[in-house]
Amino acid sequence: MMRTIATSPSARGLNDDVALLEIGGETLILTHDMMAQGVHWLPHANPADVAWKLAATNLSDLAAKGAQPLGLLLGYILSDDEWDMAFARGLHDAVTHFGVPLLGGDTVGSDAGFRAAGMTAIGRATTAAVPSRAGAQPGDLLYVTGCVGDAKAGFDLENDQMATGIDDEWATLRAAFNRPAPLLTEGRLLAPVVTAMMDISDGLLIDAQRMAQASDLQVIIQIDAIPLSPGYIHIYGDNDASRIEAASWGDDYQLLFALPPDASPPVAATLIGRFAIGEGLRLCSVDEVISNPDKLGFEHR
Amino acid sequence: MMRTIATSPSARGLNDDVALLEIGGETLILTHDMMAQGVHWLPHANPADVAWKLAATNLSDLAAKGAQPLGLLLGYILSDDEWDMAFARGLHDAVTHFGVPLLGGDTVGSDAGFRAAGMTAIGRATTAAVPSRAGAQPGDLLYVTGCVGDAKAGFDLENDQMATGIDDEWATLRAAFNRPAPLLTEGRLLAPVVTAMMDISDGLLIDAQRMAQASDLQVIIQIDAIPLSPGYIHIYGDNDASRIEAASWGDDYQLLFALPPDASPPVAATLIGRFAIGEGLRLCSVDEVISNPDKLGFEHR
Repeated sequence: MMRTIATSPSARGLNDDVALLEIGGETLILTHDMMAQGVHWLPHANPADVAWKLAATNLSDLAAKGAQPLGLLLGYILSDDEWDMAFARGLHDAVTHFGVPLLGGDTVGSDAGFRAAGMTAIGRATTAAVPSRAGAQPGDLLYVTGCVGDAKAGFDLENDQMATGIDDEWATLRAAFNRPAPLLTEGRLLAPVVTAMMDISDGLLIDAQRMAQASDLQVIIQIDAIPLSPGYIHIYGDNDASRIEAASWGDDYQLLFALPPDASPPVAATLIGRFAIGEGLRLCSVDEVISNPDKLGFEHR
Repeated sequence: MMRTIATSPSARGLNDDVALLEIGGETLILTHDMMAQGVHWLPHANPADVAWKLAATNLSDLAAKGAQPLGLLLGYILSDDEWDMAFARGLHDAVTHFGVPLLGGDTVGSDAGFRAAGMTAIGRATTAAVPSRAGAQPGDLLYVTGCVGDAKAGFDLENDQMATGIDDEWATLRAAFNRPAPLLTEGRLLAPVVTAMMDISDGLLIDAQRMAQASDLQVIIQIDAIPLSPGYIHIYGDNDASRIEAASWGDDYQLLFALPPDASPPVAATLIGRFAIGEGLRLCSVDEVISNPDKLGFEHR
């Protein structure tokens, strides 16, 4: 609904998660993400985790631009006192942990029992050219930091009454879903060298396809190269199907980026594909093309 | 709930409507205000007016700092298509009218039927010292731009089934409530000379009391000097009671400011009081002290 209104070049056509503003020789990076119960979290979620995740996902948008975060603003719909206090504690944990100040915000009361919150994150660019989804060149290689699928595994564990153990591996997967970490340091190291970058919020496959589309190229992804964690493999197995499942589920907040073929990534990352002239997403596995799954990730309304 | 978290000096203790950030030799001004159905607007409100008012109130916070607006970000809970489309039209009208770009934002779906939206406004300071509520000195004079009470009159007319005429005077009052104007030009002219400034969002009396408290002073307001419009007087009369009523109702978005006694305001404004050593709010009328009303304006939860 905002596309026809946000026509300023600073808005980047709303295709890039963030807006840019030039001021005093600096480039500001601005983003606003919302979360709502029933859409982004389940009713039994821990409000402290919800607050943490709201901060983390907004900061992840800054990380994908290599930005240094300057502050956060919160818009919050008040719920019951217990929920609100727990949310505030989680937010306090997050801003302390990430070292980013909460600058202000606003709250409104509601008797509709509807829980939602929005957050604005502001950062400053650390490179003259701010990475975007567009910019990948034919022949560029596609990398991803960390592993994908852990957030999916964490979500499934949270919703599976069977798996209530306190096994460390399970705890790591749950934390990947409940308390994601914005890759701010990695983003700043990557920003000067990447040709395109974004965070994986909706799923590796759909986000890679969006990067290809923004760059006016095709992206070819080697499914068997998609990095899975031991915990994920333990639950879902180590095969193309489990990799496609991991890669079409979002919430991982890993960084997906393109590099020229002669460059090496300055952070730990896995080579998973390349860009070519053409369009769309092509999946391969050990030199065999495989068909795209019906659902590449989360599509926004 | 945010007070214990927003401890950065940039947050100004959450007592000043806005946060400040120094970047590249410039000072950024940031604010986030929310509005919700049942709190800030009635179910039969025109969604286009709601959107306009959301933009206007956020920009009014920038006006009170003398800031030049740079952009807006929207957080919006989707409702039904008809409501959403009308809201988008009103927002388009507002950003076009005010000449401030919508930079981006986010929407979330809801089936709770709860309507709310949040907006972040970003501006740059146009003066080295950014006006705040604090800063008034003993002997400073208190001024207000325009008239107060028109928004109250507009609200009452909107809710009075009897008054459905299309009289011009009525239309002006309704517009004061539905389509307030942020006083951006006035704010920029005032910022270099005022010792304290704020916009009247919750009521002249309560906002003046807040300015006095932030400045560690008493404020004495001459009730008979409070400026009323002909339309307001037409409905509520021209007396101390109607003035107190107008001055304890919010939503006017006029600028309230303090000036040294030897300065004259650079914009049209009415002298309504002065600051003195002491604390609290004292009301006078033709040199007679009158008691404060029970309710000075809107108190936030």
